[in-house]
Amino acid sequence: MQRYFVTPEDMFEDQAIVRGDDAHHLMRVMRAEPGDQAIVSNGTNRECLAEVVELNKDRVLLRLVEERPMAGEPRVDVWIAQSLPKGDKLETVIQKGTEIGASAFLPFVSARTIVQYDAKKEAKRLERWRKIAKEAAEQAHRSKVPDVRDALKWSELLAVAERAQLALFCYEKEDGRGLKEALRGARLVEGGGPVLVIVGPEGGFTAEEAEEAERRGCVGVGLGRRILRTETAGLVAASCIFYETGEMGG
Amino acid sequence: MQRYFVTPEDMFEDQAIVRGDDAHHLMRVMRAEPGDQAIVSNGTNRECLAEVVELNKDRVLLRLVEERPMAGEPRVDVWIAQSLPKGDKLETVIQKGTEIGASAFLPFVSARTIVQYDAKKEAKRLERWRKIAKEAAEQAHRSKVPDVRDALKWSELLAVAERAQLALFCYEKEDGRGLKEALRGARLVEGGGPVLVIVGPEGGFTAEEAEEAERRGCVGVGLGRRILRTETAGLVAASCIFYETGEMGG
Repeated sequence: MQRYFVTPEDMFEDQAIVRGDDAHHLMRVMRAEPGDQAIVSNGTNRECLAEVVELNKDRVLLRLVEERPMAGEPRVDVWIAQSLPKGDKLETVIQKGTEIGASAFLPFVSARTIVQYDAKKEAKRLERWRKIAKEAAEQAHRSKVPDVRDALKWSELLAVAERAQLALFCYEKEDGRGLKEALRGARLVEGGGPVLVIVGPEGGFTAEEAEEAERRGCVGVGLGRRILRTETAGLVAASCIFYETGEMGG
Repeated sequence: MQRYFVTPEDMFEDQAIVRGDDAHHLMRVMRAEPGDQAIVSNGTNRECLAEVVELNKDRVLLRLVEERPMAGEPRVDVWIAQSLPKGDKLETVIQKGTEIGASAFLPFVSARTIVQYDAKKEAKRLERWRKIAKEAAEQAHRSKVPDVRDALKWSELLAVAERAQLALFCYEKEDGRGLKEALRGARLVEGGGPVLVIVGPEGGFTAEEAEEAERRGCVGVGLGRRILRTETAGLVAASCIFYETGEMGG
């Protein structure tokens, strides 16, 4: 069944309002009529089966008919921190990462980031990235929309890493620790804070960054003997973390 | 170091010839000069460190200076069978799947495949898909170029599945078995034949197809509570299989 996220302000005790692109989708793509059903979520703590009551030009009023458990979220939060990549690669990371189950995306700037950071452009991009996360969350049947953060400085990212349950630093070294040892060694627990996956830019991290990250508690891991592109690494790591934490069966 | 695949016909006892787009890449992008080094592989059983000897308009002659182990291949072969998806999604599957380590891609046609199969167009597309696999293999430091097969009929795919070490059929059922149980139960072995991952089209498989697949020995598995897009499912499954078989550390 089709799902829509509404703002907390648009969800009431027994009704909800779907607006904008979602209203358009419900009316024009799904061709909804009064009485048709959809799932409505406020994206934080409430998800309901709902029935279309009234269709207007740019909004749809629904009656909430049944509370539902918010079952679309993984037990352990995975955050993907991605050094700003070229082109539309971050869109791929956000879209696919949301499907896989990541709960936040943290773009950041490191020494070899190629993309020029421009605060003005960034506001527009951020808006676009958040829209992609919302649409992917609806399609993937997530209960919450993953958070897309403003771009962080390297030092700010390391501060976030220090507060994580586990911060994995993807780094290609011949003698690096494998992802599996790192995950097994960490004994991840539900509610124990996020697992942060830190992925470098196209040109990788500098040796200084790698040292600094390890000094600040990040665990350097390799993702196998093949070289993954920057936009693939986080998705592979997230898949493996969810496999290890029981999201793909016990 | 940059890697190039040459045909077996272009590799000799102590020299090799890089041609076409690869020669262009070596000369124009890498700006190679005599004495510069690269890795050359014949894609099947030989990989060497090589030194540029002579640059011509459309070909580069290299001297093979050292044999190298073919270390870029996973221990267990994973084949991704993908019902022909819309647009350029199969390109994403082939590019990312090659990075992750898949060793063959088998497009197929099933009941709900939306894309019209057209043998004439297909030849051109197949050529393009093979080029993507080769380039991704070079970039990912694979030792072999994954195989991209001609599109199979559903019945032909099931015959391939019967010869696999394990054939996983990605199917969303509430009560389905998880991927982890299926992998643990199968006790995969090196050299025991491929693990086949079968992914349906945008609209999924029919109940009849699911039944037929299970009757022919495929194992139905779920990939978690989130709904993955058709182009994401195989990549997630392959990542988890490689995690389980020790490619991400022991």
